[in-house]
Amino acid sequence: MKFYDFTLAPNPRRVRMFMAEKGIALPETIQVNTREREQFADWFQAINARSTVPVLELDDGTRITESVSICRYFEALHPEPSLLGRDAREQALIDMWNRKVEIECFNHVGDALRNGAPMFEGRAIAGYASGMPQIQALAERGRRCFQDFLVGLDHRLATSRFIAGDEFSIADITAVVAIDTAKRVELEIPENLANARRWYDEVSARPSAQA
Amino acid sequence: MKFYDFTLAPNPRRVRMFMAEKGIALPETIQVNTREREQFADWFQAINARSTVPVLELDDGTRITESVSICRYFEALHPEPSLLGRDAREQALIDMWNRKVEIECFNHVGDALRNGAPMFEGRAIAGYASGMPQIQALAERGRRCFQDFLVGLDHRLATSRFIAGDEFSIADITAVVAIDTAKRVELEIPENLANARRWYDEVSARPSAQA
Repeated sequence: MKFYDFTLAPNPRRVRMFMAEKGIALPETIQVNTREREQFADWFQAINARSTVPVLELDDGTRITESVSICRYFEALHPEPSLLGRDAREQALIDMWNRKVEIECFNHVGDALRNGAPMFEGRAIAGYASGMPQIQALAERGRRCFQDFLVGLDHRLATSRFIAGDEFSIADITAVVAIDTAKRVELEIPENLANARRWYDEVSARPSAQA
Repeated sequence: MKFYDFTLAPNPRRVRMFMAEKGIALPETIQVNTREREQFADWFQAINARSTVPVLELDDGTRITESVSICRYFEALHPEPSLLGRDAREQALIDMWNRKVEIECFNHVGDALRNGAPMFEGRAIAGYASGMPQIQALAERGRRCFQDFLVGLDHRLATSRFIAGDEFSIADITAVVAIDTAKRVELEIPENLANARRWYDEVSARPSAQA
């Protein structure tokens, strides 16, 4: 098994954190330096024509190229501790919260970063070798929606220890990675959102957050 | 069990098509007319504060508000015919293809429609009661990325009967719903993409496509 990773990118961190929570050792890991456009090199195009990390390559050659799908693979092989839920209802609710965090937070942070940060000029969408112009208004929209999300998150965390409920789940991983990524465009949890800050401090203190 | 639906919206159709494939009868269904802003009415705010359809309400009052999460719930209760995969590898690959279709197609169609169609003026993001201005450049980007996706889809379908492999899956549902939605902004599969058209005709002819 091989893991195509880039330490500085948000999506591979989701998988590393997920594996650390489960106590699964990382397989052989190959760094793909996306800041040096290595994802567009011929050798990596042969691994993932879409030019994104992470990729998990199984021993039979199968390649899984989406972070959450890689997590789902490990959850099926190592059910405990559960990060995706144990029964139909719990699995649906954790999936729902993870998707809500992606749609209402992670994707907006991505819009803010890739359409606003100078380092992504001309590369507003991951995986487009030919380039993609930034849209400044979309960076602004992303910032606004991310801030709106934090208000809702704070409200949720007033009555829930973690995002999906009493137990830590993949939804917490997605959210903490998004919030850490938002720091790159000078966005953070406002001081008055005490519940969100309590949760962020607690999740960030878990050993897996260093993975 | 209750299903909050809107017949004309893309996301609820994903769930209806999924249930039809499994032979599950729709539960009691309540229409939420989002064209008349009914999703912002007090009665529906109490059901889903995020103001989106579909919502599945279980008999214990639990509400699941994401289409794919609702599908996941039904898959766990009614595993056959499988639309999300039977083992770890198959589940990961189908999840990956479904996510690829969402990220590379469904979301771009959404951008093209909500930022480009006059009926969504001031409502560029679902669920924002206070409104959200359209971004014309994002509508254009969505159109371009959707067309790029179709080229890749055609390539994939040259060697695969369905998107995730030999068997029909949730990824086919997501794609056909996205492609049908794209017709609302005058986008369709070009005639020269024969594999994509063969697949589209086959999937559209399934009885579930009428659900």
